[in-house]
Amino acid sequence: MERYRLLIACPDASGIIGAVASHIGAIGGNILEADQHPDPDERAFYMRIEFDPHDPHKLHDPNQVLGDEWNRIADRYQMTWRLESGAERRRVAILVSKDTHCLADLLWRWSIKELDADIPLVVSNHEAGRSIAESFGVRFEHVPIGNDKAAQERAVMDLLERERIDLVVLARYMRVLSPAFVGAYTDRIINIHHSFLPAFAGATPYRQAFDRGVKLIGATSHYVTEDLDEGPIIAQDTAHVTHRDTVDDLIRKGRDLERVVLARAVRLHLEDKILRAGAKTVVFD
Amino acid sequence: MERYRLLIACPDASGIIGAVASHIGAIGGNILEADQHPDPDERAFYMRIEFDPHDPHKLHDPNQVLGDEWNRIADRYQMTWRLESGAERRRVAILVSKDTHCLADLLWRWSIKELDADIPLVVSNHEAGRSIAESFGVRFEHVPIGNDKAAQERAVMDLLERERIDLVVLARYMRVLSPAFVGAYTDRIINIHHSFLPAFAGATPYRQAFDRGVKLIGATSHYVTEDLDEGPIIAQDTAHVTHRDTVDDLIRKGRDLERVVLARAVRLHLEDKILRAGAKTVVFD
Amino acid sequence: MERYRLLIACPDASGIIGAVASHIGAIGGNILEADQHPDPDERAFYMRIEFDPHDPHKLHDPNQVLGDEWNRIADRYQMTWRLESGAERRRVAILVSKDTHCLADLLWRWSIKELDADIPLVVSNHEAGRSIAESFGVRFEHVPIGNDKAAQERAVMDLLERERIDLVVLARYMRVLSPAFVGAYTDRIINIHHSFLPAFAGATPYRQAFDRGVKLIGATSHYVTEDLDEGPIIAQDTAHVTHRDTVDDLIRKGRDLERVVLARAVRLHLEDKILRAGAKTVVFD
Amino acid sequence: MERYRLLIACPDASGIIGAVASHIGAIGGNILEADQHPDPDERAFYMRIEFDPHDPHKLHDPNQVLGDEWNRIADRYQMTWRLESGAERRRVAILVSKDTHCLADLLWRWSIKELDADIPLVVSNHEAGRSIAESFGVRFEHVPIGNDKAAQERAVMDLLERERIDLVVLARYMRVLSPAFVGAYTDRIINIHHSFLPAFAGATPYRQAFDRGVKLIGATSHYVTEDLDEGPIIAQDTAHVTHRDTVDDLIRKGRDLERVVLARAVRLHLEDKILRAGAKTVVFD
Repeated sequence: MERYRLLIACPDASGIIGAVASHIGAIGGNILEADQHPDPDERAFYMRIEFDPHDPHKLHDPNQVLGDEWNRIADRYQMTWRLESGAERRRVAILVSKDTHCLADLLWRWSIKELDADIPLVVSNHEAGRSIAESFGVRFEHVPIGNDKAAQERAVMDLLERERIDLVVLARYMRVLSPAFVGAYTDRIINIHHSFLPAFAGATPYRQAFDRGVKLIGATSHYVTEDLDEGPIIAQDTAHVTHRDTVDDLIRKGRDLERVVLARAVRLHLEDKILRAGAKTVVFD
Repeated sequence: MERYRLLIACPDASGIIGAVASHIGAIGGNILEADQHPDPDERAFYMRIEFDPHDPHKLHDPNQVLGDEWNRIADRYQMTWRLESGAERRRVAILVSKDTHCLADLLWRWSIKELDADIPLVVSNHEAGRSIAESFGVRFEHVPIGNDKAAQERAVMDLLERERIDLVVLARYMRVLSPAFVGAYTDRIINIHHSFLPAFAGATPYRQAFDRGVKLIGATSHYVTEDLDEGPIIAQDTAHVTHRDTVDDLIRKGRDLERVVLARAVRLHLEDKILRAGAKTVVFD
Repeated sequence: MERYRLLIACPDASGIIGAVASHIGAIGGNILEADQHPDPDERAFYMRIEFDPHDPHKLHDPNQVLGDEWNRIADRYQMTWRLESGAERRRVAILVSKDTHCLADLLWRWSIKELDADIPLVVSNHEAGRSIAESFGVRFEHVPIGNDKAAQERAVMDLLERERIDLVVLARYMRVLSPAFVGAYTDRIINIHHSFLPAFAGATPYRQAFDRGVKLIGATSHYVTEDLDEGPIIAQDTAHVTHRDTVDDLIRKGRDLERVVLARAVRLHLEDKILRAGAKTVVFD
Repeated sequence: MERYRLLIACPDASGIIGAVASHIGAIGGNILEADQHPDPDERAFYMRIEFDPHDPHKLHDPNQVLGDEWNRIADRYQMTWRLESGAERRRVAILVSKDTHCLADLLWRWSIKELDADIPLVVSNHEAGRSIAESFGVRFEHVPIGNDKAAQERAVMDLLERERIDLVVLARYMRVLSPAFVGAYTDRIINIHHSFLPAFAGATPYRQAFDRGVKLIGATSHYVTEDLDEGPIIAQDTAHVTHRDTVDDLIRKGRDLERVVLARAVRLHLEDKILRAGAKTVVFD
């Protein structure tokens, strides 16, 4: 059966849930899941409703699904909203550099249908991921960096556009994206990076974490904004380490964390369970 | 400000959320939190709404708060429902035997106001918990087992009734309750017990877990039903152990698990975040 | 540089560590890692020493590496011992049925050199794992069950023998092994299975766990003995679930647990970090 | 039975384990636990041996216990070493400010004998902890800050000296210690603080973590050095949080983390299981 997902953000006010839920009922919809989050600090309200449509023939025109009255409700509560149809599978591109653990994991999950999307494209500034991508039947494009970084990024963006990509997953892609790239895919670029307590900057974080003698390592997945590694956090997890763990052990445990945390973030995004809430996310999981 | 919590269970149907939320709006209520869970397997629907009342003066008569129309809505959807007022603090009794770690933890949390309730009574078949209870200013009653088990249980029940107890917490109380006792406090007795993978029966579970060489120990908190240790599960957690842990280490780690898991279950109950759903619970946390 | 791993089990006694460590020194060995575990309950002692050999040319004759005096030491303390050489890579076969998540994960870890072994063979009673095995360049043999279960098992054992397999990994292989099979690979068959609190028997454990409303699911990896699912536990882990998780969500989370826990057990075995200790394991990790 | 713990740090070299273990045997000692950690990066070696003494009458003179030959061994391997006797209970002082959760937890663990030490003194710059300390029969000294910070610190140090304190636990003590204080108790001051991914500085870390939308909160226990909050890490742990958690929920979950992580660090210290290794710790747990 077809499903719709209605995602709403608006100033907090009385009556929103009743107005929305009653309207879904009025158009013959059957609510399958409903989640709300009033944020008293921000005086904001977030809502996600998953429902069966009243008329499966009207799938491709959101205004027809929700009816004319919906616009009046949305205006009254100053809603930012979108309606996603389960009939339209999102198109995902994976960007990767030399470390292929997240790439391999995402493609495997996709192959067993854990991720409800199309993955038509893998792009890399290295050749390392080619055999993995191609073993899953996915097009792999090697776009080396060369002398002209801007040209390389433009080439990547051209590939994304031609494949009509909806979601860009940075699966250990070690290049900084320009503001233009980030702006073209607002809230549609997901990144993964290691996280430590305390935090470490620089090129060899696992080495630094080892030298500092941390007893935990972590991974964070987030939407990419212009502030590198500072976008809204989607998912995080940690694993215990001891003095017996070498730097290689830390890297190995980090791989396991990174692939699970990134896959979780991608799945939640594809199920439309993440709402951007300023610098934060609301994750209805 | 005063808050009400409306808890609903009913057969799943279209329109429930809209009807309930609109009604709360119609009586002037402002929804602060709303959670729903449709259970497609059981064709059941669970809902929790926390709202500001329209008129704080009517606090003590639920029918007045929700108005006459509410009964028609409840009838239409065949609802089982209850309305809890934040103005009426629940009265909690803690039953304990010799192991006092959960008792001490609950009373400490209560003393720093983590638990929103009154705790007027601790009952035990041993003296071990007296000094702890009394150091928190709580009445302690020693009701030893003696020859007549039924008489002991009646004495305990009398104490609970005289103190008008709403919730009975079995904080390592090592006596089996009779069906009459359980029946008098349906969904209002919370127990904690150790849990292992695999499970062990008998008097020395940590010893057995040690002998079996488990790498995890666990704790489970649940509502008590006539099936001992088989009631609806509220919360669970585990901790890693190794061959280096002695039986005493397992017991020590078990204490830490048990007090956290039990405290979590009690807090969720007091915040009316648990709905009984047949053999299961729906926990809106 | 070449490494040896000396694994010892014996009755507990004074002087063992000194005798062993001094002997390693006497033959010119340099101890890289040393772990001991005295078990006071069993009056047993377990030891693992990893050392550089004094003479890399004598790699293939353990008696030459340790020298004649070693046998006297081993006799004096009634040791059961073995010496593993890092020069001889273990040969691993993976047995799998329809669920291929553990197979795919193990082969991927092997491909990035997380597992220090050769994997020349995958055997299955289904065709489901063929494309995965072959994409990693590993021989896949389909041995269907048919009418004669004993004949099928003999065919599997023949394959293992011809490939001189040292370790058999049951990566969701849903067949019970005969005592003859188990006896041929004592402490060299590793299995993975789901684990719940409480435990569930039967064919649909995730369904039963869902119906019971568990808040945790788990996975256990263990050596296979004649008691099905009851062999010495190597590794365990759990994940939290809620009422929002469907049976499919439980199965998905179970996959993530199973592949991590099984991979951990296999890695520990290949690094000779597991000593069998009666019904238990000592894991020097 | 009496136990000794011998703790050794030295440059890595061949033969250490054999020399030490054989010497323990030569003096009639029976090794109960032995742990080693060679650190190839630092070319360092760490060792902890727990043994029964050969002669319980010689308890109070370490040189007599280990014998004259020991000094030659220690010299040969350039060892830094110390011998701790289980007969001498460590004397612990707890310093606390307004948040008393760690204080209450430590005293409770001490009262049930989880912590093998004497706790003769609680010092605070506030009155908040008095009733807790006194309910456990422990002397409480209020040393307010006033105008002269140096005088306040001297008063605290005087109390510690007069009580012959071996270990200072900062159980949410919100004052910076002077280098003189830190220098007087090198590797004998344990602190606890919250930890986040990413890290936050400033006065309201939970508020900042909430505003940043973290999905994990953490706690770190460490030895105090002159670099505030930067000493060698002993123990860490994290807990998951969601958008539903308020700042108060984060603080509540943080309390649970902090008390468990601090108690773990204190217990490990009292069992002499922590060796300082430069900027790190080796924790033989």
